[in-house]
Amino acid sequence: MQPTVTLIAGTWFAPPRRGLPWEHWETDATNPADAVAEFAGRLCYQSWDRPNPSTRSNRDYLRNILEQEHFSVLEHSGFTVAITGVSRSFTHELVRHRHLSFSQLSQRFVDEASAGFVVPPLFRDDPEATAVLREFHEACLDAYRRLLEIAERKLAEQPGLSRTARRKRAREAARCVLPNMTETQIVVTGNHRAWREFLLKRASPHADAEMREVALKIFEIARSIAPGIYQDLRLREDGQGIERVRRPAREEVRV
Amino acid sequence: MQPTVTLIAGTWFAPPRRGLPWEHWETDATNPADAVAEFAGRLCYQSWDRPNPSTRSNRDYLRNILEQEHFSVLEHSGFTVAITGVSRSFTHELVRHRHLSFSQLSQRFVDEASAGFVVPPLFRDDPEATAVLREFHEACLDAYRRLLEIAERKLAEQPGLSRTARRKRAREAARCVLPNMTETQIVVTGNHRAWREFLLKRASPHADAEMREVALKIFEIARSIAPGIYQDLRLREDGQGIERVRRPAREEVRV
Amino acid sequence: MQPTVTLIAGTWFAPPRRGLPWEHWETDATNPADAVAEFAGRLCYQSWDRPNPSTRSNRDYLRNILEQEHFSVLEHSGFTVAITGVSRSFTHELVRHRHLSFSQLSQRFVDEASAGFVVPPLFRDDPEATAVLREFHEACLDAYRRLLEIAERKLAEQPGLSRTARRKRAREAARCVLPNMTETQIVVTGNHRAWREFLLKRASPHADAEMREVALKIFEIARSIAPGIYQDLRLREDGQGIERVRRPAREEVRV
Amino acid sequence: MQPTVTLIAGTWFAPPRRGLPWEHWETDATNPADAVAEFAGRLCYQSWDRPNPSTRSNRDYLRNILEQEHFSVLEHSGFTVAITGVSRSFTHELVRHRHLSFSQLSQRFVDEASAGFVVPPLFRDDPEATAVLREFHEACLDAYRRLLEIAERKLAEQPGLSRTARRKRAREAARCVLPNMTETQIVVTGNHRAWREFLLKRASPHADAEMREVALKIFEIARSIAPGIYQDLRLREDGQGIERVRRPAREEVRV
Repeated sequence: MQPTVTLIAGTWFAPPRRGLPWEHWETDATNPADAVAEFAGRLCYQSWDRPNPSTRSNRDYLRNILEQEHFSVLEHSGFTVAITGVSRSFTHELVRHRHLSFSQLSQRFVDEASAGFVVPPLFRDDPEATAVLREFHEACLDAYRRLLEIAERKLAEQPGLSRTARRKRAREAARCVLPNMTETQIVVTGNHRAWREFLLKRASPHADAEMREVALKIFEIARSIAPGIYQDLRLREDGQGIERVRRPAREEVRV
Repeated sequence: MQPTVTLIAGTWFAPPRRGLPWEHWETDATNPADAVAEFAGRLCYQSWDRPNPSTRSNRDYLRNILEQEHFSVLEHSGFTVAITGVSRSFTHELVRHRHLSFSQLSQRFVDEASAGFVVPPLFRDDPEATAVLREFHEACLDAYRRLLEIAERKLAEQPGLSRTARRKRAREAARCVLPNMTETQIVVTGNHRAWREFLLKRASPHADAEMREVALKIFEIARSIAPGIYQDLRLREDGQGIERVRRPAREEVRV
Repeated sequence: MQPTVTLIAGTWFAPPRRGLPWEHWETDATNPADAVAEFAGRLCYQSWDRPNPSTRSNRDYLRNILEQEHFSVLEHSGFTVAITGVSRSFTHELVRHRHLSFSQLSQRFVDEASAGFVVPPLFRDDPEATAVLREFHEACLDAYRRLLEIAERKLAEQPGLSRTARRKRAREAARCVLPNMTETQIVVTGNHRAWREFLLKRASPHADAEMREVALKIFEIARSIAPGIYQDLRLREDGQGIERVRRPAREEVRV
Repeated sequence: MQPTVTLIAGTWFAPPRRGLPWEHWETDATNPADAVAEFAGRLCYQSWDRPNPSTRSNRDYLRNILEQEHFSVLEHSGFTVAITGVSRSFTHELVRHRHLSFSQLSQRFVDEASAGFVVPPLFRDDPEATAVLREFHEACLDAYRRLLEIAERKLAEQPGLSRTARRKRAREAARCVLPNMTETQIVVTGNHRAWREFLLKRASPHADAEMREVALKIFEIARSIAPGIYQDLRLREDGQGIERVRRPAREEVRV
């Protein structure tokens, strides 16, 4: 089971103009995210008529925003992905990013008796590790089912619990044996400032292998829907051929 | 000068489905915001086939989400407004809402020599107050222009400052005389959870009159683009005929 | 293995006074947290001389703050706990509280070959479940050790990795078999506003059993170090004898 | 009127040890903030016995934390300052720092009829500007008093308003003429990670002059109460002799 990262939602931008300060503003932005960032920046400086030739195009305008680190204008647009085929150790790290928003498959509510397992990248093509994991998978789900049964029996004796409450209590107890590698699903939303911070930290050789893998997929989505906002971030390889997202030094960006 | 609140951006929702867990999910949501909230909720519980008749429709599903206070699913969609014709005392309070995002007209960069003034609601139709304010407006802008001149003279003597830096330094000093009622503009973005918190706190008789006025306009926008997410909030009048947004007690909502 | 919750840090308060607006302010607060909340509130209203008899004592002052929901003054003090003997499913939920701060035992860095397991409350005294879990514990740690060995062998062939990096890569892969019930440790810091939100949500019959257990321990700590700030929260039992923290309706509090 | 920045609260650290994993941990930290950061880091890596000689001392341990950008361990301690003698334009910018916490003098509640004014640094010793400002000050407070009177007269006719509500409504309207330079007071709390971000952004030549002045005072406080946590930040002068806080490149720090 391998991760899928699916773009499911994003930002539209369609400002009414009539009689408003930006009535005559024009932009050559190619997408809503880059456009709303320029809009927000120009409102701060009231530069609707784009007086400065060096920041007249949307691309140049955003390059300047990024160089000035005026990142708050990147908070007005963002995107949402739905991620499947990832492990609970991945999501336990992911949800520490407090500027992102999350909705995740609940092991307290969902029956995990036939849950899938996510093999870590390092073990994917290794026959020996795969054999260990296959056997382990069986043992886990077997223990889960036995505990679920025990829990349901114990809770049946407790008066005053609804059927739903009983099921939830049983699953929340039985999940104790589900391992880190249990497949989970998660919806993640962030504005572009938050996604940039995430990418610079997690699409990195220092990150967990699965995390880096997912972060690189998110980077592809991010720069395809907002090429201006991510123009200063680059895919680079380190010495061992491991790809990462980096923000090169200023001079390098200008070239 | 009176406030304008213009909806300029929001969330689209268009999940690819083929081969994904939500492939056969259907919704009768009438808009993207309500749909993505249902999507996020159903992913948590893996209830894509809508097994429970009492939460089968999008409206009923979200009613249940709101009753359970499962507010995190409301973080996956939101909207952006551009606000003009409001005062700096209004924005000074507004920007305390740390879950919202802001881009605001900068008095350090923009020449305010002919800035507009926003009369507080209480004084709007009062001839005596209007007279005081008209005279005061003149005195303010006159002081601003005199200080700008003094500042520019002083800064001309400082070596090594670019023309832009000099202008910024002069304006940031001269703005000291600009009053709370100076017109400002601001772009504000929030997800629906953040907007709900804002509305419950600020569309209230306890809020500043201008704040309440703007909050009520935002409420109209919010419930028109996401009627399901705001279905439990109501416009109510207090004893003095002042409108507010309230979340009635649970029983009242169910009716 | 059962949870320990240890108070390790908190807020001191010792304002210099000479020549400052609060020079003559006095308070009967019994602790720094309640005192700084009163200080912050009185600064907002410049009521250093405590003109209102009904809010003259610290206790009454904070009761009023809580009734007005002026919660921002509760953000100036807080406390830190170190928690041991809890499970990774507990911390996976806990770290969603984005207004709290966390430092957690890293399974990528620490060798887990003899990790402890945390039995869910429901199974604690159950001999049948305990037997299942004991056997499962062995199987898990056995799989972990075998995978660690495989991983180290594979990584030994990769050039250019430091010994530390190799060890980290091996552990991050092998941890895939560690279950939710693996013991973890975590340091958690929050200001009193954030802790109140946490307690109201998690010291609840709706919460996971382990979460509720820890939340009740935190409540004891919270109200012992800041009795004024938590004066409106009460321990209550629901119909099944399950304790929870509640904020009773206003009338009830006043009594 | 010039800014005062007063340290009023901070973090104590006194972990019980008996029977806990950190029972035998020792530290040479000189203060609670540096100690709790080391504690949190060592809990993550379970390195209570300080096995690595190069990070054995608290100073070296935190240097490594800063180099690794493991900033979350800096969130467990912080400090609070009370600031007086600053302008409302200063606080309007300050409160955008959403990871800090604020309590500010309320112009809706406090009578501002004899409010002080804060002269911008550029004008402080300029007799011409001072003359303009003195005259302006008079005109402002005069307008304020006249509007307050008008407001109270209008509100006296409205039935059903309490005396307190009437006073608040009058002041919130009359404050419209109070300028940016009106003196305000504010209590600000942050953890050390948030303060570091604030300092790097605001103790800068790009910041407003008053902001930079206050930020430099806060830097003095910060590094005196947590020298380890701020060890990589330096006071530097730019070409025009303007001081700023910078984080020098890694190599420079190691020297």
